[in-house]
Amino acid sequence: MKTIPSTDAIYTFVPDLRPVERARPGETVCFDALDALGGQVQVETDVLSGLDFERINPASGPLGVDGTQAGDTLAVHVIAIDMADQGAIVTGPGLGVLGDEVEHHATRILPIRDGRVGFGDLWIPAEPMIGVIGVAPASGAFATGTAHRHGGNMDTREIGIGAVLYLPVSQPGAMLAMGDVHAVMGDGEVCVSACEVAARITVRVDRIPGRSRDWPVVETAHAVHILVSLPTIEEALVEATRQAVGFVQAARGICREDAYMLCSLCVDIGVSQLVDPNKTAKASIPKFILPKPASELL
Amino acid sequence: MKTIPSTDAIYTFVPDLRPVERARPGETVCFDALDALGGQVQVETDVLSGLDFERINPASGPLGVDGTQAGDTLAVHVIAIDMADQGAIVTGPGLGVLGDEVEHHATRILPIRDGRVGFGDLWIPAEPMIGVIGVAPASGAFATGTAHRHGGNMDTREIGIGAVLYLPVSQPGAMLAMGDVHAVMGDGEVCVSACEVAARITVRVDRIPGRSRDWPVVETAHAVHILVSLPTIEEALVEATRQAVGFVQAARGICREDAYMLCSLCVDIGVSQLVDPNKTAKASIPKFILPKPASELL
Repeated sequence: MKTIPSTDAIYTFVPDLRPVERARPGETVCFDALDALGGQVQVETDVLSGLDFERINPASGPLGVDGTQAGDTLAVHVIAIDMADQGAIVTGPGLGVLGDEVEHHATRILPIRDGRVGFGDLWIPAEPMIGVIGVAPASGAFATGTAHRHGGNMDTREIGIGAVLYLPVSQPGAMLAMGDVHAVMGDGEVCVSACEVAARITVRVDRIPGRSRDWPVVETAHAVHILVSLPTIEEALVEATRQAVGFVQAARGICREDAYMLCSLCVDIGVSQLVDPNKTAKASIPKFILPKPASELL
Repeated sequence: MKTIPSTDAIYTFVPDLRPVERARPGETVCFDALDALGGQVQVETDVLSGLDFERINPASGPLGVDGTQAGDTLAVHVIAIDMADQGAIVTGPGLGVLGDEVEHHATRILPIRDGRVGFGDLWIPAEPMIGVIGVAPASGAFATGTAHRHGGNMDTREIGIGAVLYLPVSQPGAMLAMGDVHAVMGDGEVCVSACEVAARITVRVDRIPGRSRDWPVVETAHAVHILVSLPTIEEALVEATRQAVGFVQAARGICREDAYMLCSLCVDIGVSQLVDPNKTAKASIPKFILPKPASELL
């Protein structure tokens, strides 16, 4: 199987990315990814303020997907996330939601064993997810630590094993890159990081021709989640609501008011992360209100 | 069993409420509650703009709980929510998250049958919850449509059957009132209403002496949710995060930085509602990280 090594990584999503590997639609590919700290934190005396920031948030890739064009959707099926046996979490003054109230830099090394993450004497069930995943944008340059319409640092728990992420394609070949695996993360990622861990990510890529949405969408067992990343969480929550109402209206062929009311009954508006340069909101639409498979409704 | 009729209702939570009924700690009481529209919407031509707004958001009560004092916590165990067989949802121009984009007032009458809510040809699983529930505040006057430290219109899905709501007590007798049952609601309540339905609510009230938190807390099977209601969702999300970090720090006896990191790993920051005068955020703390029962940690 084709494997992209962690040494092939980008730190900015730009329009003219050059692929380090290519795949056909339907092909399965592995991405070896460093943790979001670039592997620089191995013991608890390695604190964030001492790191080389040019090595933060590597995204392995890009992978070019043959025949994929602007205006298509790239479907990324997450087959497996095989994690290293140790992760790390970091925080410090100025970082995260309560950065003003934290006095010291702190790092905790978190062992990962038998599907659980150790924090002191607690063992937390692991729920591996991909923090950074995106494609070449239509225009502009987005550091891998930032999320927007192209994907990027969405830090969304639902992008885990078994999920399908749909990314709007803006450039030939899509140019898929990913990294920043978390062994576990709470919605909000409040302290600025989660259980940051190196991993081998296995995905199958597919092309959905001629259809592209404004924002990434991730499909899980029972819901379709629209992911919106904007400078404030307030803007992101409003736009996620707008996207959900539009999606439900089109999917069911109903009037705007009915779609708005149906979303008020059934759609959950939530938070992915509150700590990156753009904040990410999610609108979770239960599949039972959709008349067709999600992939046909994009 | 003592039953408070829907004709005994308040529209404002104020410090000096007079009880319409009294109960001892440990006693079970029923509250008959009109829907949040005051029962004024029975057919789809009854739209919100035509209603008498003085009858919106009735809260049945107040119930005085013997021996309860300022500085205590009132525990409200939700035993049952028996709903009428028809609810209603309303929206219109200027209402909800996307009020600027809605052209017409609209009402849908929603039959409730066999635990499901009908919306056109869809049948949505019912998940009954109490939208408005609160006690007399320390000071100020809060319309029942507004939520704050005393509770009120928190519109939180987790306040359902089997949950225990812990309310900070500010006045002798606590003065509990409730209403605004929803047969189903998505997080956010984006169109300004949900499936508004009349109901008989059965609760057991208990007193936790000498302990009181800053904000209401609701306990469900697997988590403890701190509910914060403030003028913007951004402020509410930040304060909910701060409350969760403080709760986890005290519960586990760990330093601030460790509590902050543990919350980043395990606590979900989310949205209850985006549409009332104060917006409500929730911080959901999984019970497995707490060393004692929630009621002992308040």
